[in-house]
Amino acid sequence: MVHYPNKKKDLTKYAPHEQKRYTGMRGMNLEEDITMSNKYYLERDIAVIYKKPTPIQIVRVDYPKRSAAKITEAYFRKPSTTDYNGLYKGHYIDFEAKETKTLRFPFANIWDHQINHLDAILRHGGIAFIMIAFTTLNEVYLLDASYMIEKYRSDGVRHIDYDYIKEKGHLVTQGYAPRLDYLRIIDRYYLKEEENENPKK
Amino acid sequence: MVHYPNKKKDLTKYAPHEQKRYTGMRGMNLEEDITMSNKYYLERDIAVIYKKPTPIQIVRVDYPKRSAAKITEAYFRKPSTTDYNGLYKGHYIDFEAKETKTLRFPFANIWDHQINHLDAILRHGGIAFIMIAFTTLNEVYLLDASYMIEKYRSDGVRHIDYDYIKEKGHLVTQGYAPRLDYLRIIDRYYLKEEENENPKK
Repeated sequence: MVHYPNKKKDLTKYAPHEQKRYTGMRGMNLEEDITMSNKYYLERDIAVIYKKPTPIQIVRVDYPKRSAAKITEAYFRKPSTTDYNGLYKGHYIDFEAKETKTLRFPFANIWDHQINHLDAILRHGGIAFIMIAFTTLNEVYLLDASYMIEKYRSDGVRHIDYDYIKEKGHLVTQGYAPRLDYLRIIDRYYLKEEENENPKK
Repeated sequence: MVHYPNKKKDLTKYAPHEQKRYTGMRGMNLEEDITMSNKYYLERDIAVIYKKPTPIQIVRVDYPKRSAAKITEAYFRKPSTTDYNGLYKGHYIDFEAKETKTLRFPFANIWDHQINHLDAILRHGGIAFIMIAFTTLNEVYLLDASYMIEKYRSDGVRHIDYDYIKEKGHLVTQGYAPRLDYLRIIDRYYLKEEENENPKK
């Protein structure tokens, strides 16, 4: 995996509720990979998918003369929804992305209202999933939100095992561009298009 | 129009590039009205539409002991996309909302890349529009993005007149709940559903 240089001095990713994600940073950076992939999709006019900005409550702003407004007091807010959404081939796409160093995805990484949000997306005809990066294995899976919602709402279940994700989810192909070709999975398993385009496969 | 009490001390709306919008604040507050309407749609499980958080570049964060992380230096960023997006009856919805005190909508209120974004949404099969509030008239119109894009890209045109918006757009019904029933316009003019539901109309 390529290491992305930290070009901008932006600590947005260090919001307390997001810190857990970056524990596997040495090997891979899921957020950066998705951002690069979305940029690739956007530039080639394949899809319009963005990460939502981190929600922040602004309390104090200075307006210095002849320079940009400076926020001097603000706090992180819990996100109401998931991190990513957008449009692909007429379909509404919505997902959350998480890294884990272990061989399980712990529900401590996800909020109740994010689960409810993904459920609402499915109910209203959108495509909803979670992308889970197992950083020690260097594998990323796309798991339909329905599986996660079911597990999350089961009594006593506080995580999803790697084996279950491997069974029910789809391994995302990694490459140079796009880094994570997750829309290929949407084509193949959600829109059932792959077979027609590549009949020999 | 109801005046909304300013419950939370949150200055997010005063981002420099957003200030123009709130000039008509005495009479109406479009953002607040849309937020209330989206909340109404969400609670009744009609649609899942949210305002995106204001994009902010965080430079410095303090982590005081036993209290929440405090952002002490941050700056407003230009938004890459529009303010609102979501899902309604399986359709991807995307829009920008602006207020004007005059009888024209000046393009100074909108960014180049927002126009390109709306264009991409139309190209990929989404529903894209702008909601324009004429605060002195207390009227809100929904105008399909295609009209705005065409005008925006015409040489020498730097605004859209009220008359044109009235002709090509649709007046949004105002009420108690939802405050702005803009999805009714989507039903009627985009999904062509109204006639079946109310055959006598």
